[in-house]
Amino acid sequence: MSDDIALARAASHAAAEFTDSVRSKLADLVAPDGKLDAKLAEREQHLLHGFAWMATISAAIDAAANWAGRAHDAGAFGETDELVLSIGIGEYCAQLASGVVMSQNETVRPCDFGLDEEAREFACDDAVSQFITLRNTAEKRAALARRLAEGERPFEGTGDGMLDMVRDQFRTFAANRIAPYAHRWHLEDALIPSELVQEMANLGVFGVCISEEYGGLGLGKLAMCLVSEELSRGWICAGSLGTRSEIAGELIGENGTDEQKARYLPKIADGSILPTAVFTEPDTGSDLASVRTRASRAPDGVWLIEGAKTWITHAARADLMTILCRTDPGTPGYGGLSMLLAEKSRGTEECPFPDDGIAGDEIEVLGYRGMKEYSLGFDRFAVDSDGLLGGEEGQGFKQLMRTFEGARIQTAARAIGVGWNAFDLGLRYAAQRTQFGKPLLAFPRVSDKLAMMACELVMVRELTYSAARHKDRGERCDIEAGMAKLLAARVAWANADNALQIHGGNGYALEYQISRVLCDARILNIFEGAGEIQAHVIGRGLMALR
Amino acid sequence: MSDDIALARAASHAAAEFTDSVRSKLADLVAPDGKLDAKLAEREQHLLHGFAWMATISAAIDAAANWAGRAHDAGAFGETDELVLSIGIGEYCAQLASGVVMSQNETVRPCDFGLDEEAREFACDDAVSQFITLRNTAEKRAALARRLAEGERPFEGTGDGMLDMVRDQFRTFAANRIAPYAHRWHLEDALIPSELVQEMANLGVFGVCISEEYGGLGLGKLAMCLVSEELSRGWICAGSLGTRSEIAGELIGENGTDEQKARYLPKIADGSILPTAVFTEPDTGSDLASVRTRASRAPDGVWLIEGAKTWITHAARADLMTILCRTDPGTPGYGGLSMLLAEKSRGTEECPFPDDGIAGDEIEVLGYRGMKEYSLGFDRFAVDSDGLLGGEEGQGFKQLMRTFEGARIQTAARAIGVGWNAFDLGLRYAAQRTQFGKPLLAFPRVSDKLAMMACELVMVRELTYSAARHKDRGERCDIEAGMAKLLAARVAWANADNALQIHGGNGYALEYQISRVLCDARILNIFEGAGEIQAHVIGRGLMALR
Repeated sequence: MSDDIALARAASHAAAEFTDSVRSKLADLVAPDGKLDAKLAEREQHLLHGFAWMATISAAIDAAANWAGRAHDAGAFGETDELVLSIGIGEYCAQLASGVVMSQNETVRPCDFGLDEEAREFACDDAVSQFITLRNTAEKRAALARRLAEGERPFEGTGDGMLDMVRDQFRTFAANRIAPYAHRWHLEDALIPSELVQEMANLGVFGVCISEEYGGLGLGKLAMCLVSEELSRGWICAGSLGTRSEIAGELIGENGTDEQKARYLPKIADGSILPTAVFTEPDTGSDLASVRTRASRAPDGVWLIEGAKTWITHAARADLMTILCRTDPGTPGYGGLSMLLAEKSRGTEECPFPDDGIAGDEIEVLGYRGMKEYSLGFDRFAVDSDGLLGGEEGQGFKQLMRTFEGARIQTAARAIGVGWNAFDLGLRYAAQRTQFGKPLLAFPRVSDKLAMMACELVMVRELTYSAARHKDRGERCDIEAGMAKLLAARVAWANADNALQIHGGNGYALEYQISRVLCDARILNIFEGAGEIQAHVIGRGLMALR
Repeated sequence: MSDDIALARAASHAAAEFTDSVRSKLADLVAPDGKLDAKLAEREQHLLHGFAWMATISAAIDAAANWAGRAHDAGAFGETDELVLSIGIGEYCAQLASGVVMSQNETVRPCDFGLDEEAREFACDDAVSQFITLRNTAEKRAALARRLAEGERPFEGTGDGMLDMVRDQFRTFAANRIAPYAHRWHLEDALIPSELVQEMANLGVFGVCISEEYGGLGLGKLAMCLVSEELSRGWICAGSLGTRSEIAGELIGENGTDEQKARYLPKIADGSILPTAVFTEPDTGSDLASVRTRASRAPDGVWLIEGAKTWITHAARADLMTILCRTDPGTPGYGGLSMLLAEKSRGTEECPFPDDGIAGDEIEVLGYRGMKEYSLGFDRFAVDSDGLLGGEEGQGFKQLMRTFEGARIQTAARAIGVGWNAFDLGLRYAAQRTQFGKPLLAFPRVSDKLAMMACELVMVRELTYSAARHKDRGERCDIEAGMAKLLAARVAWANADNALQIHGGNGYALEYQISRVLCDARILNIFEGAGEIQAHVIGRGLMALR
């Protein structure tokens, strides 16, 4: 078995070298003077983003090799793991050598960089060619699908027994308390029940990363990944309930005054304050520098908010808004933005926004239900005079940007949970449904899909955990978090799409859960930084490194 | 300009030759004795289906070259057409040389066949390499997107002035009478209004291919494509209303007794009889040989139906059912199946299924709304003694199978219409929405998507028209129809997915039409033969040819 791991490491090394040659070629085009030229980078956006995708695939190969190494060291690297490693690395090496899909009609290929020869050499590398031609075979994919159908699962140990217990706890909770009801709540377009929110609060969901000093669990981003992944495996809403607490907790924990920390963190941690993130505006999606919502001081020091926000999740039930707004209209762009901590009254079904100066309209959505989305209008909505985060103006964008790493890692974990949900549903259907005298699972086109779902989930999960470990060590991980988010969204969407395909017509019926999972999965490549934004951040970041 | 066309023809020739080398390699594996071995074909399903996909891409290249030739001959081959040809053939040649996506996690690559060397030679062919490296460039994609945003469209002449007028007529009708209302009807999950059905009947929608002798338009499948495409561009439901009339018309026109033809065809043609296709059963999706619904003769000759059917579109409002059922329980498989023409009463909202012996339940669905889906239960439902199609038992499956070509071509046309709808919405949004100080359209990742949408639509449209022309000449076209359906479903889904991505968060809001188009597009790879079934039919068919 240790041969497998050595070979995986060799393939990972070759992939990194090949990706490096892509980087060099790209540098000639977009950084002729050694520094990325923004104009050239935009002209060559296909190549810049393509390189980001290739580097992401390469990083996923590396994460898979490390995962196999950990499984081996734990004495747990079994047949199923060997198959996952072989098929997953085989497929991802083949993608690097031939082309990586960036969207359903955009593929980046080595020839786009004039690197056919280098791609050929990469594919002919001893380890790489073994993975591509001998290890990702129809036989192995069928064998993996059979093992999965028998209930075997790839190694998922984190190397930390306490974290493994956290995973087990949330897996059980999601299976018992969420999965059986999620589909009904989705179809009814209902808010997730308050009692369930309370149960999750009792489990510590809202304070995973808040320090124990303030009543949180004081765990890190890796723990947050496990919690988010397992809850999302039941329903994306369950895995997303904590997102806003995570963001608000980080904003306040990192930037708040002592008073703000003492006032909010314990209540965020215990779930008695549900926060909502009020950043996006109708004309401002990814382009946050254009935020126009205005906050001005009244003579008594109170902040008065004017403007329109949209895509505000869970806004009616939230108790605290983190509002990105312009406090200095004289400073355009990022510099004039500040973050306000704005308390609000929790709404009811009859009166979702009881406070003066705030009006809200629900935005009906395809999926990602259970918290509801709103557009908000602020008309001299009053915020406490001490509501300015950290007590300092002009820091809003910087404060927010520092939460992006954590939010993207958490979103990747949500995507992985949704991806597992799709896999679970697809596998179950394929094992039960008979056509042409045998279970669907016996058809290679079905088992291929399921085998690849599991392989990609393991690879992107380990990529995500790797980003979380960086973060937990206090290292910069904007690129790593972006990679995790980028790939996890693709995997979740691919899994949902293919699991629905396995269901045939039934997948199209609202009665079947996979119809919801498809809708839920579609948001993942849009929110918390669309795929195109992630690719840009990764590409630019990698070109700036070293 | 004629150089472009000569070059396109040369690339098409090279693609066909390369695909032929794939076929030879595959034949060694699955037809060692010259004839396809079913067991080997199943073991190598990835390769068999992969070959089908590659042959489909190759056929689309050929169709594009022929389209350009026709445009040139008509003196209409302009800059926009040159760009479409260059980008489209460039991309599809690159797919052939590097890998064709069969689903979001299955790609077939030349290396799967051990054909790296041949793929390299193909990519180095003079014409092919020009398309891949010089003609599908970032500059050209941006230029095409700009032209499309200015309102230019690729050549769409059919070479038949009367058909071009038909297209114009239905485009206007769809734009005025369907597109403005479709989204509301979708959101309300309403039946398409009867008045609109009548308007479509007046335009001849239900009798396009029914002979003039029986009151139809007596046109062919190419005309049917234009009608279906334009109506679907307004709403998939509008383009699908005629599907069942088309199938029933073909079943009766080809197989009916003189009495059956005289009784039904005129009323199907004028829309006074709306038929529905009653084939699928709960345990029987693609595997029609397993149909169990039973029809037995009562002493008075009346047929009595017992059994369960599902996914019956427009069933409540339909007046005539074409029921595939088992009249000979002693003959298993296809042989014991017959087709019955079963009249029923048109249902109302209060009483959807007023007849004795038939009960129906609505199946709620993600999209493809406006006719509603039902599961039906038959309990000694009575059918006229002369309801046996053609008066002959045991012919049901054969009769049905002969409609597959037409139905698949028509479904491809529906997919193309849905794909154009997505393109229209994506282009409009990209031109209007500003981010980072300019319209979305100015960003290469957005213009790349839109340019490729248009190119793929032209290519698969021409592939579909080519299949229709085969059919209209009375030639076998099961493979060609399958290719059109296979690729059109992929293109529609890719376009919907990418047009939604261009919309960002707004695409996820039910208020925006693209959220519907995504849902509508998802059915196309499932119904009328799922993608995996089409690939199987194409692969098997191509291996059996010559």
